Amino acid sequence: MKIIIENNYEKLSETTAQILLGCMYQDKRVNVAITSGDSPKGAYSIVTPVLKEHKERFSNVHYYNFDNVEMKGFKDGMTLGHLQEQFFGPGDVALENIHGLKTENYAGFDERIMNAGGLDLMLIGMGSDGHFCGNLPYSTQFDRMTYSQKIDPQYPWYEWITAGFVDQEIPDDMVTMGAAALMKVKRVVMIVNGERKAAAVKQFMEAPMDNKFPSTILRLHPNFTIIMDKEAAAQI
Amino acid sequence: MKIIIENNYEKLSETTAQILLGCMYQDKRVNVAITSGDSPKGAYSIVTPVLKEHKERFSNVHYYNFDNVEMKGFKDGMTLGHLQEQFFGPGDVALENIHGLKTENYAGFDERIMNAGGLDLMLIGMGSDGHFCGNLPYSTQFDRMTYSQKIDPQYPWYEWITAGFVDQEIPDDMVTMGAAALMKVKRVVMIVNGERKAAAVKQFMEAPMDNKFPSTILRLHPNFTIIMDKEAAAQI
Amino acid sequence: MKIIIENNYEKLSETTAQILLGCMYQDKRVNVAITSGDSPKGAYSIVTPVLKEHKERFSNVHYYNFDNVEMKGFKDGMTLGHLQEQFFGPGDVALENIHGLKTENYAGFDERIMNAGGLDLMLIGMGSDGHFCGNLPYSTQFDRMTYSQKIDPQYPWYEWITAGFVDQEIPDDMVTMGAAALMKVKRVVMIVNGERKAAAVKQFMEAPMDNKFPSTILRLHPNFTIIMDKEAAAQI
Amino acid sequence: MKIIIENNYEKLSETTAQILLGCMYQDKRVNVAITSGDSPKGAYSIVTPVLKEHKERFSNVHYYNFDNVEMKGFKDGMTLGHLQEQFFGPGDVALENIHGLKTENYAGFDERIMNAGGLDLMLIGMGSDGHFCGNLPYSTQFDRMTYSQKIDPQYPWYEWITAGFVDQEIPDDMVTMGAAALMKVKRVVMIVNGERKAAAVKQFMEAPMDNKFPSTILRLHPNFTIIMDKEAAAQI
Repeated sequence: MKIIIENNYEKLSETTAQILLGCMYQDKRVNVAITSGDSPKGAYSIVTPVLKEHKERFSNVHYYNFDNVEMKGFKDGMTLGHLQEQFFGPGDVALENIHGLKTENYAGFDERIMNAGGLDLMLIGMGSDGHFCGNLPYSTQFDRMTYSQKIDPQYPWYEWITAGFVDQEIPDDMVTMGAAALMKVKRVVMIVNGERKAAAVKQFMEAPMDNKFPSTILRLHPNFTIIMDKEAAAQI
Repeated sequence: MKIIIENNYEKLSETTAQILLGCMYQDKRVNVAITSGDSPKGAYSIVTPVLKEHKERFSNVHYYNFDNVEMKGFKDGMTLGHLQEQFFGPGDVALENIHGLKTENYAGFDERIMNAGGLDLMLIGMGSDGHFCGNLPYSTQFDRMTYSQKIDPQYPWYEWITAGFVDQEIPDDMVTMGAAALMKVKRVVMIVNGERKAAAVKQFMEAPMDNKFPSTILRLHPNFTIIMDKEAAAQI
Repeated sequence: MKIIIENNYEKLSETTAQILLGCMYQDKRVNVAITSGDSPKGAYSIVTPVLKEHKERFSNVHYYNFDNVEMKGFKDGMTLGHLQEQFFGPGDVALENIHGLKTENYAGFDERIMNAGGLDLMLIGMGSDGHFCGNLPYSTQFDRMTYSQKIDPQYPWYEWITAGFVDQEIPDDMVTMGAAALMKVKRVVMIVNGERKAAAVKQFMEAPMDNKFPSTILRLHPNFTIIMDKEAAAQI
Repeated sequence: MKIIIENNYEKLSETTAQILLGCMYQDKRVNVAITSGDSPKGAYSIVTPVLKEHKERFSNVHYYNFDNVEMKGFKDGMTLGHLQEQFFGPGDVALENIHGLKTENYAGFDERIMNAGGLDLMLIGMGSDGHFCGNLPYSTQFDRMTYSQKIDPQYPWYEWITAGFVDQEIPDDMVTMGAAALMKVKRVVMIVNGERKAAAVKQFMEAPMDNKFPSTILRLHPNFTIIMDKEAAAQI
């Protein structure tokens, strides 16, 4: 594992953007899976204007999302909706370069990625509870490729997931890449920032490798980089 | 360049089969481009029964041809016709794993290969005149990816190519991968056998790198193996 | 995971030899780690005569062992001693191409491998108890690279390991690559044969991924092939 | 070939720095060969402060030079001397990570690189006469790996090379990687800037692939990126 600690969020974002763009500038098809959320906002604000200004440079870059919850009000589901807002829209990414993971197509998604030469780079975040992608504590089985998870009252995370759904219908399931799918990604970069993630970073580094804190399994990834700001790295 | 000299054609075939099968047995999509002709017959007689007996093992292997001449009497063209007879038929290869290069699709063929993750292995022969794939002496430009070549009386190889066409209509063009396309293949293996190729092998090794003897350019390939029997290696 | 079931041990050995030799015949440095023991004997009886007859072909191939117990009577330790008998000796492998893992050098071994471009291929077996390399049930921590394990009476496998030591001094420790080190190998091939391994194969495939049956973790490897004979595959 | 045209030298430098740093931030040994000269100055002014501030991050990155002329007054030769000034010094690069190509060691340099896993990235410039590294017009043979070139009055470039030597002794030879060595580099990035290179860029793109304009051979490289500013791209 490569550990990068930056003095602040701005530096973290700059380094993340260098890795993303550095990987995209190749004379070959490049397949990337990127995260939505708060952590990558800084990096995306550097990357997306370049994508938009120089569309022709990046026709070789294809995008995949690694999880999705299909909710009303989010076209194509929550993650894809967020990525559209944060990345694909501002970057003016061509539709044919976006390969959306959805409930309807998750079953063939691993094969689709394999047939495109595999994922070159994945950018992920980490939850305070140790979840990565849609792999939640206690319920995660590590040897899953891309899978679907029913969201019903028996599911241990039912309340946690549905808590935010006030006026919306609760979705039936979510889809996500599992740990086995991530192991096949040539290079995984995890970004973590802020004081409130400091305890999680410590857990990620030191906790036993089991599904109580799912991201621990990523310590096994063959080419893994974690980029943190000082606050997130405070407890290690 | 890795040089392998075998005592006889049988050994040459065995080593070639080991390389082919060894590459196919992977837990990833494997893209191979294979040659037709006499040289690979021995290797194919080892490989195809395994493919036929264990179809389920090789669903990850995809085939591409690197040149083609579309003639009457050869469904899909000459090379594809020969490969059908020599390899795809005896190996009972699934149609969806065969990606035929033809006049009608050559223009998008490089992109198709790129979008499948690139070629992992190419097996080629060499002509006594130094041609490889459809790249003929004097007329070859080295920086071509996959291209089409008009076959009309102005073409320097018109007579050579059309000599065998007695009762058949002469085709308008042929298609072939060029040297630039071969450079992108992760591993190229050339097999040459028999006394009548001995002078060509010497040229391949020692002649100036230009299109008088086109295969000389392959001395630049980053991961290239030549497998010869003793007869073919007699002059080096 | 790629699953290959052969009709008998002879076929298993042939396929294993094809993968080994197929990987070695490249125009680049090739780093392999190979297992000792009964399972690979058939494959080595195919591979080693080729190595011996054609030494010049294989100067690019470098060998590493993945575990070792240093016992009296075994020069360089048990695994290295066995490999010398089974492979390096019969194959007449040059000393400078053998990179022995020992107690004295285990601490820098991962870096040494990294500085040689990483391992291209590892061939391993599996114990009936699910151990792989020196990673034994219950005591294995999955996120170890190469590590040393004290063998003292407190160690849970003390009796098991020392049972065979009648007139010999019990060694102080053993060294082994851990699961994290295996994840970095570009391609792992596991061979399992015989009826007495059938239950272990079932466990390997289906048991929960934890250290009660350590090889379960290898289900996460990005390019993993298991080759079995029919007997070993009888329960799946 | 990937073609990137930037609006100005500052942007060119930023993109080049992203590629360099993006490649270095990996959890594996990374081998890079970098150019000296004017073109990379902007990129190095971005990269070297990061290297200096965060030495611990880059212990996995190893540096190789691709040519050298050993002159009095330049410790270790001209290229190494310039790199020391422009890159290794300002970046505070550890001595053990610098692998200097010199007259005394050129013969084993290709093997040394092979044994370190090969070059991941090479950054080069291009001369107005089409030379790259030490491969000069007319005298270059394309199928050379790393080689030594005598500089005596018979050498066609004797006057050109020695013109600047006023009070200094003329060196006996220079050493350089040849085209065959470059083909083995996983990714080559060429940077060209300024109006005075515009004609050369046109030649590089369009001239026949021969040693009258040596860089033309690089059109065959499997993963090649050219980054230009608008001035350099004016004639294409």
